[in-house]
Amino acid sequence: MTNEFNQFVSIQLTKNEKNALYVQLYNQIIELIHSRVLAPGYRLPSVRKFSQYLSINPGTVVNAYKELEKSGYVISHGGSGSYIAEKTSLMELDMGTVMADCTLLEEGWENKQNGDMINMRSIALNPDVISIKKFKELVIKVLDRDKGKTFSYEESQGFLPLRESVVTYLKERHVSTSAKNIQVISGAQQGIDIVVRALLNHGDYVFTESPTYPGAIAAFRSAGAKVIDIPMEPDGIDVIKLEKYLQRFRPKLIYVMPILQNPTGISYSIEKRNRFMELMRYYDVCILEDDYLSELSFRTSPLAPLKALDRDDRVIYIKSFSKMFMPGLRLAFLCIPEYLAERILKIKYITDISTSGLTQRVFDLYLREGVWQEHIAHIRKIYKAQFDFAYQVAQHAFSDKVIVQNPQGGLSFWIRLPQKILAKEFCLQAEKNHVYIACGDDFYPRHIDQSHIRISFSLLSLQQVEAGFHILGELIQERM
Amino acid sequence: MTNEFNQFVSIQLTKNEKNALYVQLYNQIIELIHSRVLAPGYRLPSVRKFSQYLSINPGTVVNAYKELEKSGYVISHGGSGSYIAEKTSLMELDMGTVMADCTLLEEGWENKQNGDMINMRSIALNPDVISIKKFKELVIKVLDRDKGKTFSYEESQGFLPLRESVVTYLKERHVSTSAKNIQVISGAQQGIDIVVRALLNHGDYVFTESPTYPGAIAAFRSAGAKVIDIPMEPDGIDVIKLEKYLQRFRPKLIYVMPILQNPTGISYSIEKRNRFMELMRYYDVCILEDDYLSELSFRTSPLAPLKALDRDDRVIYIKSFSKMFMPGLRLAFLCIPEYLAERILKIKYITDISTSGLTQRVFDLYLREGVWQEHIAHIRKIYKAQFDFAYQVAQHAFSDKVIVQNPQGGLSFWIRLPQKILAKEFCLQAEKNHVYIACGDDFYPRHIDQSHIRISFSLLSLQQVEAGFHILGELIQERM
Repeated sequence: MTNEFNQFVSIQLTKNEKNALYVQLYNQIIELIHSRVLAPGYRLPSVRKFSQYLSINPGTVVNAYKELEKSGYVISHGGSGSYIAEKTSLMELDMGTVMADCTLLEEGWENKQNGDMINMRSIALNPDVISIKKFKELVIKVLDRDKGKTFSYEESQGFLPLRESVVTYLKERHVSTSAKNIQVISGAQQGIDIVVRALLNHGDYVFTESPTYPGAIAAFRSAGAKVIDIPMEPDGIDVIKLEKYLQRFRPKLIYVMPILQNPTGISYSIEKRNRFMELMRYYDVCILEDDYLSELSFRTSPLAPLKALDRDDRVIYIKSFSKMFMPGLRLAFLCIPEYLAERILKIKYITDISTSGLTQRVFDLYLREGVWQEHIAHIRKIYKAQFDFAYQVAQHAFSDKVIVQNPQGGLSFWIRLPQKILAKEFCLQAEKNHVYIACGDDFYPRHIDQSHIRISFSLLSLQQVEAGFHILGELIQERM
Repeated sequence: MTNEFNQFVSIQLTKNEKNALYVQLYNQIIELIHSRVLAPGYRLPSVRKFSQYLSINPGTVVNAYKELEKSGYVISHGGSGSYIAEKTSLMELDMGTVMADCTLLEEGWENKQNGDMINMRSIALNPDVISIKKFKELVIKVLDRDKGKTFSYEESQGFLPLRESVVTYLKERHVSTSAKNIQVISGAQQGIDIVVRALLNHGDYVFTESPTYPGAIAAFRSAGAKVIDIPMEPDGIDVIKLEKYLQRFRPKLIYVMPILQNPTGISYSIEKRNRFMELMRYYDVCILEDDYLSELSFRTSPLAPLKALDRDDRVIYIKSFSKMFMPGLRLAFLCIPEYLAERILKIKYITDISTSGLTQRVFDLYLREGVWQEHIAHIRKIYKAQFDFAYQVAQHAFSDKVIVQNPQGGLSFWIRLPQKILAKEFCLQAEKNHVYIACGDDFYPRHIDQSHIRISFSLLSLQQVEAGFHILGELIQERM
């Protein structure tokens, strides 16, 4: 019997671990597939024999196999057994998964904001903090100045004065570039999607942090890329594991958020950044850096973007203006290595020809007239207070069995629940009590996570923040 | 020798034809590939033998082979000869070609409008005909009404009130649908791209009219689809040839513009429409109908869209609002069969999450308050006069050797040059004389066309229209 199970000697299942046994088994088989101990076409042991070998209930093996099949790692051929999938079937655009990734942001918070509902799920600024007066003023200014031209075809690369404003904006963040390396896009999601289409072929490997932003996972999968996720540690990505995987796979791209990572809120330490950049250079990987919310670093002054360290032109930097204004703005930019500019431009053209001319022209004035800088200062002030308050309330509401990932800033907390509580069930329970939170599971490309939730406080009044954490705290108490 | 050339008996080259001999040879070899007389892997005859067999200059064969290689039909293995490409290499995303397709619209007309330049290349409304006053009024109305919410995340499917307004708008055009089958998009190009990504797999066949819109070709190619173009006749697509190809290939999709087709300006006759729909039903093909400029049918009252005849849910209808307003607006919608709605929604989400909320809300008021209908009436009046004038001037400027495709309306003419004049050279010549026109070649996915040009009159004053045609007329005279 030992012979048949040689490949599985590393499997260790622990009953008092946080994750159910079948989840542990599922995650460990995935590790074996990724590390190529189990090759495509390999036939998994029968349920009966495997459960005997592992001394567990056959139902546990059945459940693990089912999950492996659902996520495309395993193909079941009726009576003849379960086989590790060929690479190709792993790459299939799994629309079901894409959809699951999407739902997180798709549900407008507006719909969830009614009545007693407390929306701690969505991350977006509260519409009340936006100065509509200023926006109106600048729209009128643009329309009076440019008249019908406001709506002419813009250059696909973006309205040149805006690209020049962006260059000035980047200079203040220690990134020196020129307008020809700026590509205006309709939001960060479009930026990720365009980069994916310009760079990746069906079957290419992409690395991400784990957990990570689900919209990015969806874009990678839609291109047929294979996503390998590398765990996050409190000071940034796990560089040991990263190197291990870099040796095995040859990813074309790694997608990272080095400052206030979504969903963990972690910022990379200087040491981690340096080591990370070294590895990328050594293994020659292109970096997609999503500057998510760096303006909201409250505890430490944020480091410059990786793009500022990009000596050998491997960083594609995405910055959304929508996130620090309002998501419906749909405006962002890419700062790209020169050799990619033309390719990216073509895909932008195919995608939607150009971004709204009105939005671009108005936003150019925002930057040019210093309105943006004032706006950010205003937002920082408000959300610093909101953040401090929320952290205090969370500390008070939760026992020390609940771990609030030591947050550096941002609009949400990443929280590890006590062992006994499963995240998915807890989220449903919270919903029944009118509090919406995000389940950690949605942020993992492949692995199942039953420990984490993300709690946002960005759309709420202080009263609601307090009420929300109070309800969640009580629910946890009840279940202990 | 006859045996070796069995496959080529159909080849007929005529010296006094419009197209150069190598172009004729190139086009006829492509026909043989499409009709599968020449299979992938087939080795083409050596230049020497083939030129002997055809009684032509070896240089002619060399040139034809080179063109075939450029467009991916043939692969050359150094000394060992030229082979018909495997299907896969035909599908490769050919960024060079995509780029060529794009340049047509990419160059902003603004840049070409300086000084003496007469831009008869771009099709877009003149910015002066847009009422900026009205637009401003409605922007302010929306901002005052919705405040910060104007910029909240919109539903990915689109702002519901706008989708409802679109349903009403469609009812007037004999299309009955509901808001759940409307997908708001950021311009027609995005619509084509999203449909492509939702429906097509690498290697699928797509049919188009020939000539057709280059942005669509670029989107099809970017998905690795193989484009087969079916010739246009004066009353619509060539249904005989269409059926012949339907029997051979199994296209998933056909892309058509049944009213004022771009670039030919042709509208399908009722008989053609009916036969076309019959064929689509019989061969079970999904139709992507791009309603390009139907509002500008001046000679005949336009028929309803094909979508109005869509009894068995196979038509995806794209309507851009940008084209009849200003291209920089980036707003359009898809009317889709219900079974595709979810799939399309997911791709829209991956592409850019949602279309600008401000634009959607303003445009909802345009439709709801009847401003759009007034706008269209205004545009029709102005461009009817422009069209009649341009047609009159063209008749006067060109001899009867120049065939102005009998136009039904729109903003441009599709023109066949006299035999002696090659379109590409003529376009360059015109440019030297400060007149920009579009070369017919750019509108053909595969075939080379040396006969046609497209002349637009949409951005010009009447004086410029007259001057432009005058210059072109003289250039033609000179070359006869």
